[in-house]
Amino acid sequence: MNCVELKPGDADPLDRIFHPEHLAIVGVSVQGRGFGSGILMSLREIGFEGTMYPVNARGGEIAGMRIYKSVEEIPARIDFAVIAVPAGVVPDALEACRRKGAAGAEILSAGFSELGTPEGVALEETVRQIAGKGIRVIGPNCFGIYCPRSGLTLLPGPDLSRESGPVAFLAQSGGMAIDFSHIGKWMGVRFSKVVSFGNGADLREVELLNYLGNDPETKVIATYTEGVKDGPAFCDALRRVTKKKPVIVHKGGLSEAGGRAVASHTASLGGNRVIWESVLRQCNAVQVTSLWELAQTSLAFSMLPERIYRGITVAGGGGALGIAASDSAEAFGIQLPLLDPAITDAIMEILPKPGSSARNPIDVANPYVPPHILKEVLLTAAKDDRVDLQILIQLLYHYKSMALFSGCPVKDVTPFRELAAAVGEVVAVTGKPVIVVTPNIKQGIESLDIEEMLREARAAFLSEGVPVFDDLEDALRAINHISQYCARKETLERKHSSSNSF
Amino acid sequence: MNCVELKPGDADPLDRIFHPEHLAIVGVSVQGRGFGSGILMSLREIGFEGTMYPVNARGGEIAGMRIYKSVEEIPARIDFAVIAVPAGVVPDALEACRRKGAAGAEILSAGFSELGTPEGVALEETVRQIAGKGIRVIGPNCFGIYCPRSGLTLLPGPDLSRESGPVAFLAQSGGMAIDFSHIGKWMGVRFSKVVSFGNGADLREVELLNYLGNDPETKVIATYTEGVKDGPAFCDALRRVTKKKPVIVHKGGLSEAGGRAVASHTASLGGNRVIWESVLRQCNAVQVTSLWELAQTSLAFSMLPERIYRGITVAGGGGALGIAASDSAEAFGIQLPLLDPAITDAIMEILPKPGSSARNPIDVANPYVPPHILKEVLLTAAKDDRVDLQILIQLLYHYKSMALFSGCPVKDVTPFRELAAAVGEVVAVTGKPVIVVTPNIKQGIESLDIEEMLREARAAFLSEGVPVFDDLEDALRAINHISQYCARKETLERKHSSSNSF
Repeated sequence: MNCVELKPGDADPLDRIFHPEHLAIVGVSVQGRGFGSGILMSLREIGFEGTMYPVNARGGEIAGMRIYKSVEEIPARIDFAVIAVPAGVVPDALEACRRKGAAGAEILSAGFSELGTPEGVALEETVRQIAGKGIRVIGPNCFGIYCPRSGLTLLPGPDLSRESGPVAFLAQSGGMAIDFSHIGKWMGVRFSKVVSFGNGADLREVELLNYLGNDPETKVIATYTEGVKDGPAFCDALRRVTKKKPVIVHKGGLSEAGGRAVASHTASLGGNRVIWESVLRQCNAVQVTSLWELAQTSLAFSMLPERIYRGITVAGGGGALGIAASDSAEAFGIQLPLLDPAITDAIMEILPKPGSSARNPIDVANPYVPPHILKEVLLTAAKDDRVDLQILIQLLYHYKSMALFSGCPVKDVTPFRELAAAVGEVVAVTGKPVIVVTPNIKQGIESLDIEEMLREARAAFLSEGVPVFDDLEDALRAINHISQYCARKETLERKHSSSNSF
Repeated sequence: MNCVELKPGDADPLDRIFHPEHLAIVGVSVQGRGFGSGILMSLREIGFEGTMYPVNARGGEIAGMRIYKSVEEIPARIDFAVIAVPAGVVPDALEACRRKGAAGAEILSAGFSELGTPEGVALEETVRQIAGKGIRVIGPNCFGIYCPRSGLTLLPGPDLSRESGPVAFLAQSGGMAIDFSHIGKWMGVRFSKVVSFGNGADLREVELLNYLGNDPETKVIATYTEGVKDGPAFCDALRRVTKKKPVIVHKGGLSEAGGRAVASHTASLGGNRVIWESVLRQCNAVQVTSLWELAQTSLAFSMLPERIYRGITVAGGGGALGIAASDSAEAFGIQLPLLDPAITDAIMEILPKPGSSARNPIDVANPYVPPHILKEVLLTAAKDDRVDLQILIQLLYHYKSMALFSGCPVKDVTPFRELAAAVGEVVAVTGKPVIVVTPNIKQGIESLDIEEMLREARAAFLSEGVPVFDDLEDALRAINHISQYCARKETLERKHSSSNSF
């Protein structure tokens, strides 16, 4: 192992970067234009916890804050800096931050190696040399760092969540970083740290992966990568980190045209599909193929216990739904075991008739079955030993008819809060997770009230620790990723211990 | 061929069923409860074009309409009847309708063979015998017929669209029929006829498929099936109809647990996955695996020319998006050809810089590129002969920042109407279809205004004949279905003509 591993508890120099007390923002404008002013306003909006020191050679004031004429003028040792000056003067700004004691800087400015010009490449080399003297660099050509706990945010991320959580995300692409952070906010993925490292002149995938592997705040690591600089070191890091926590990898640019687009986008090498896929599998990384799958898989890993899910129940109203569920589950290698007859009978006793069935899938016959009945159904089904997890499909849009009939808003007549509490209790009592799926077939302009209700319902379930998916297939795919990760981890551990015993 | 084929133009007895002038509704209640009254109110709401005759032995009035005490009392020859009386009296009601000259009846009532009881089976046999005397039966245990042109609607479908279109849908499952009809409304799938035939005592998949194959209003047939009664006849019908128009089949219950659920739901045999898949392929049916895929594929077939799509362009803002697009396209066997250098240069001349690229995928560098520029980009790219179709990815949610800045609602600052007109013009000028993809990463409670804008944008694109997908992968999958159908059709035609030439 050629990489220093930190033990949990050790102070890592990168900690100062994610939780800076004193932050310089180099390159704000009095008029409030440009990236520097943009990120400053975003940091104010999100409520950054430290002290900010705006810098511009002309001085002045922005949003009631003094603008320092130089980094040297700042009356404190700085921890971290945001640099958003034109590329040509970035090295000077970076050097000034280094002398001012900064542990690191994120360089938002573009105009470096991504241009493909000798000047751009040389400028990036200069940045790398300054970094080598002790200031760690994120970027250039990036959207920076989002850390909900300290209030650092991406460009432009004034409205990201301040709730901290177990998921870290690494990407070269700023677009992917900001998009995933936004998706996470409503989907329920809570972040420890998000880093968009752009051209990656200094800090990049390998070192950040190792850091996050040791970060006690991070339980799940998600990454979007278009290409890595040092393949063997990346594999080494992956192999080491996946022993401790899952690493979900979305590799972009595996196709011919995709590789071409990667070259235009981040000037990395796209790489061969077969090589990437086999390497990722060998390192027990979880490979996904889209941003949505990345988000859904991160949600599942962060909210569900890490184990192999062999058998599940699927309960919901509508026979065709149960059939679709069974077909999809099989496609992902998940069983719907035929429930023990005594359990089936017990469930049938509490379900409305006719139209219901309870052998698994469980057809509750109509969409208005009240939460306390659904709770009993789930509690009873969980008694079957072959059930590892339960999925409850709820077609909540049906309550719109009830709303029209009663004259009340659909969000007032839909019992999603009671249902969320009921499901939360089922999980607590049975120790078996429940996933809620809330498809929405009514997405017309006239049905915005249904959308509003569904969004409030999602928040209610999340507050009970219950993940929500729009679509059953997405949920099953995510569950399967957890199972696959755990199965491979067990196999690798067995191999390791048996090779140790010789 | 053991089935009489009708030539277009011939009057088919089923035509009277879909477009009844005189409709009996047998089994309404004065109190307005039950399926009979429910369907009557839905028919009024949607604006059924014919005359309705409610029937109940007690007589009285409902919603200002006279209730006839018997079918015999109706002062007209009826064309079609909705029967919603208790199962035991269904045969009498059906026989009365037959004597009154009805071409057919839909029986909404449950309590027949789906119960699995000897009584239920016998009752259904009685229904079948009456049907054999000349009145065609839809059901029992079904949601009936939806025909936008005449205003017949499903149970409960007061709010379905009255716009007619090229897609027919057949399903045993009422839930699937009503769900697909609702999805079609906002997604842009316009229907000729939707039939939920439930237990299928008389009319079922084979005869309906043949009818729709000859129906000049129907250009695309979609079906959800849990099992067919007569396999060879179904294959025969499929093979014959797919020569004329695409038939999209979603077969539910191919898994073990799914087959079990089918048995509970419609008492059909689920059938073996391998057999079904190979039969469907041989008959050139388009197989899909979910209701969403069924809807998306129907949308694509109904709005795009039937041809093999080999090469496409993908244009949009954000490098990572283009990369994802390229990777997905390859997975579906679709090429993104490297554009002719002269075309690339011409596009680069009009795109904002830096950050843009135009070799294909086309990265337009930012989400605010105005419609007239995007129009030029699409017009120029279409000049490459290898481009059969173009995809425009638009991240319209970005306009929210502009809305916040200007204080105007996001739907007012987002130029989706101009964009829809521009794209419509591109299609008209180039003769090459364009698909618009509008992903939405902001689905929080605070972003309902973005959702509203996106729904209005979808309607605007649809009114220009441009299909919209939420997700690029769904669009590519649907395009691939069209290509596969056309390729197999060509092969089958070649085989047929070469065997004829000997």
